[in-house]
Amino acid sequence: MAKELTPRSESYSQWYNDLVVKADLAENSAVRGCMVIKPYGYAIWEKMQAELDRMFKETGHVNAYFPLFIPKSFLSKEADHVEGFAKECAVVTHYRLKNSPDGKGVVVDPEAKLEEELIVRPTSETIIWNTYKNWIQSYRDLPILCNQWANVVRWEMRTRLFLRTAEFLWQEGHTAHETYQEAEAETKKMLDVYADFAENFMAMPVIKGVKSASERFAGAVDTYTIEALMQDGKALQSGTSHFLGQNFAKAFDVTFQTRDSKLDYVWATSWGVSTRLMGALIMSHSDDNGLVLPPKLAPFQVVIVPIFKGTDQLAQISAKVDKIIAKLKALGISVKYDNSDTKKPGWKFAEYELKGVPVRLAMGGRDLENNTVEVARRDTLTKETVSIDNIDTYIRNLLDDIQANIFQKAFDYRKENTTAVDSYDEFKEKIEDGGFILAHWDGTPETEAKIKEDTKATIRCIPFEGDKTPGNCMVTGKPSARKVLFARAY
Amino acid sequence: MAKELTPRSESYSQWYNDLVVKADLAENSAVRGCMVIKPYGYAIWEKMQAELDRMFKETGHVNAYFPLFIPKSFLSKEADHVEGFAKECAVVTHYRLKNSPDGKGVVVDPEAKLEEELIVRPTSETIIWNTYKNWIQSYRDLPILCNQWANVVRWEMRTRLFLRTAEFLWQEGHTAHETYQEAEAETKKMLDVYADFAENFMAMPVIKGVKSASERFAGAVDTYTIEALMQDGKALQSGTSHFLGQNFAKAFDVTFQTRDSKLDYVWATSWGVSTRLMGALIMSHSDDNGLVLPPKLAPFQVVIVPIFKGTDQLAQISAKVDKIIAKLKALGISVKYDNSDTKKPGWKFAEYELKGVPVRLAMGGRDLENNTVEVARRDTLTKETVSIDNIDTYIRNLLDDIQANIFQKAFDYRKENTTAVDSYDEFKEKIEDGGFILAHWDGTPETEAKIKEDTKATIRCIPFEGDKTPGNCMVTGKPSARKVLFARAY
Repeated sequence: MAKELTPRSESYSQWYNDLVVKADLAENSAVRGCMVIKPYGYAIWEKMQAELDRMFKETGHVNAYFPLFIPKSFLSKEADHVEGFAKECAVVTHYRLKNSPDGKGVVVDPEAKLEEELIVRPTSETIIWNTYKNWIQSYRDLPILCNQWANVVRWEMRTRLFLRTAEFLWQEGHTAHETYQEAEAETKKMLDVYADFAENFMAMPVIKGVKSASERFAGAVDTYTIEALMQDGKALQSGTSHFLGQNFAKAFDVTFQTRDSKLDYVWATSWGVSTRLMGALIMSHSDDNGLVLPPKLAPFQVVIVPIFKGTDQLAQISAKVDKIIAKLKALGISVKYDNSDTKKPGWKFAEYELKGVPVRLAMGGRDLENNTVEVARRDTLTKETVSIDNIDTYIRNLLDDIQANIFQKAFDYRKENTTAVDSYDEFKEKIEDGGFILAHWDGTPETEAKIKEDTKATIRCIPFEGDKTPGNCMVTGKPSARKVLFARAY
Repeated sequence: MAKELTPRSESYSQWYNDLVVKADLAENSAVRGCMVIKPYGYAIWEKMQAELDRMFKETGHVNAYFPLFIPKSFLSKEADHVEGFAKECAVVTHYRLKNSPDGKGVVVDPEAKLEEELIVRPTSETIIWNTYKNWIQSYRDLPILCNQWANVVRWEMRTRLFLRTAEFLWQEGHTAHETYQEAEAETKKMLDVYADFAENFMAMPVIKGVKSASERFAGAVDTYTIEALMQDGKALQSGTSHFLGQNFAKAFDVTFQTRDSKLDYVWATSWGVSTRLMGALIMSHSDDNGLVLPPKLAPFQVVIVPIFKGTDQLAQISAKVDKIIAKLKALGISVKYDNSDTKKPGWKFAEYELKGVPVRLAMGGRDLENNTVEVARRDTLTKETVSIDNIDTYIRNLLDDIQANIFQKAFDYRKENTTAVDSYDEFKEKIEDGGFILAHWDGTPETEAKIKEDTKATIRCIPFEGDKTPGNCMVTGKPSARKVLFARAY
């Protein structure tokens, strides 16, 4: 192979970087921490966006767009929020450049200093709640169910493509409600949407739960999360949905007239997933040969490679292939026919394996004679020779199989790598192997901090499902309501 | 009507602002010059995006994403480019805030000063060509046909919703080619895509042409444009496509091995349309009652309003309406059924008129008896009573009629308001009435500047089509190759 990857066994982290770059998903840019999302990577993100957007709209949400910039003073209005975000903000201080006095290039024009600095949004609660203030007078104006697709900036010191970048793309939902109950139900509904998307489109099993206080979003009353387990045994927080209570309504003085003509603060939620999901997708399924994509998110689901000698044979193959393409497209299956003559079939095979195309068809001279085609699946790397008759339904079923199989594989991996422990010694031993660990915890931030300090493991969530037997904290022996989910995490 | 607009005859500019705000399209935000695009406005923008994106992909383009920030030094690399953009840039100088010493809020942390300032992209040629440098070695790597959907910032001093805002949304295509001819053909192809979109989706006739040197994009060899005429007689530049020659390749040293094994600089184009098109759409068709939307871009094409007394009658109407909705949806027509009982029919009629819904159906008691429905078209404000049998094909044809009619109306308006003149006196008189004026010009920036100084009119373009008879400049009497298109412009 021309574009060999570092094997995962040698260095998982290097394998990831190799894969992201060599499969043309993304690369680092000239701006520290900011990535370029390349066309193939962006095509996968577009697929994700389209499905999520459809799911948001089906649950009654609409899209809108709010400013990139946030006045500095807005950030300070919610005490926890500013604590969480002020330390990693890109700050706009000037609005003009001028020619450098030495004639070389341009410099910031000191006369064009902003009266109040603007922050490039790290998240939009503040600017949105400042806007909602004018949209909401009465209960009749509620609920507001807005989502925004946008770029945000958090000035992270250590960055990794997709997983942690200074600028990233995401969606952020911001909803406003009459009651506690309605807002809380919305928070859970959107977590369910994320879990549905993760499991049924990304083929990535997730555990739903609530974050401990110290892992909560800055400004939230509760943060719900979906947590996935990567192949290296580390957890990846894949989406969060926040119940914000009345915190932002109070910070921005957003009140409404209730049904019984009183005045109350509005209840809020926010929820988001980002291009970080690209990292989750890559690390859930891919192997040492490259990406493995779930058919539902692959930019093209089938690639067809002709194996030919001379233009006559190519023409014969192409005639058959055209018919196959038409049949596949009629079933809504996306196909690429790579009949370029500048690359050899072997090169193409490796390239589409690297890019994770779920199904590859190859057709050569013998196939022409036998009315067959060679079908290779990316997930298992197995091949079969199949008759062209009914190839369309065969492929449709195969794509369903692949989608189900990679989910099952990830599900089995997670099952094998989820352990319940009863003692802290056992915890400390098991955590070295990676994976999810269920253990009793006394519910205090102090114990949580000690565990993190000792083992680098964090509480990923207090799961909604699973064993709910009470017990005693593995560290302090104090009472624990139920075992919670630990892991080392991205 | 609850939400009355200032009539156009009284103040066109106030009418526009009223309409944008009252039809829930957009509003000003707390950040100077930045707008909030409200859900209804954003839904129209999403329709535009979807069509344009489809057209870009059909012409072989792919989407990608490049950083929001541009290192300051990049801007300076192309001499004209920096001249054009340095004076209106948002500049990021710091990457952290800290608690204010007085305990009130946060301040910029002086220790977190960036070594090199970052510019919030006003356009992305520089960061993209710096990236393309690594993507291109040989002619085999060409062409590159990338588009990006993104937000950009230009620190305009006077802003107007959609028409001129500090932050706006747009798409920017950036392509790289082997030859002058191929790049030039791409520039023209994308201008044709824009014109097709403007005329066939926005129902807005445009004139295609090339900009004079002084109106060119900063860094372009040639700028092609589509120009539309608004109802107040002012022109609006609606989309531009730039032939960049080898300017950016030279600035960023992007060379490639040619087919005959020489080294040459890569040829470039860039092209974009923005949320400014929302302004163009509004001003092309709307009236004193509100928006008039072309059916192809309306968030919903049909609204159905029941006129009922009591829940029994509503139930009878709803049963009939459900069948109509099913039939319309089967034809791909989008419908909203507004059966809320908190608003009266008259309020709803005004509201959907304001929002430009192309067709309104109303059904009352007599319609129930007669198996009819009242059909009102937004463009002509006329009503008819129509049998429910075959209502689906009736509406489909009506939507086509409306789409064609509003284009024709705008086309006729432009025709009536386009004048050819031969003397500068005539020009100065006619320009006061607004509209497009065709006149001879000697081709010099000096004459162009004098005309602008005297009359506030600019050369919108040198049209590709139309009368190509040579003559003499209306100002200097010097030779003119053909009449060019003048107007006062947004």
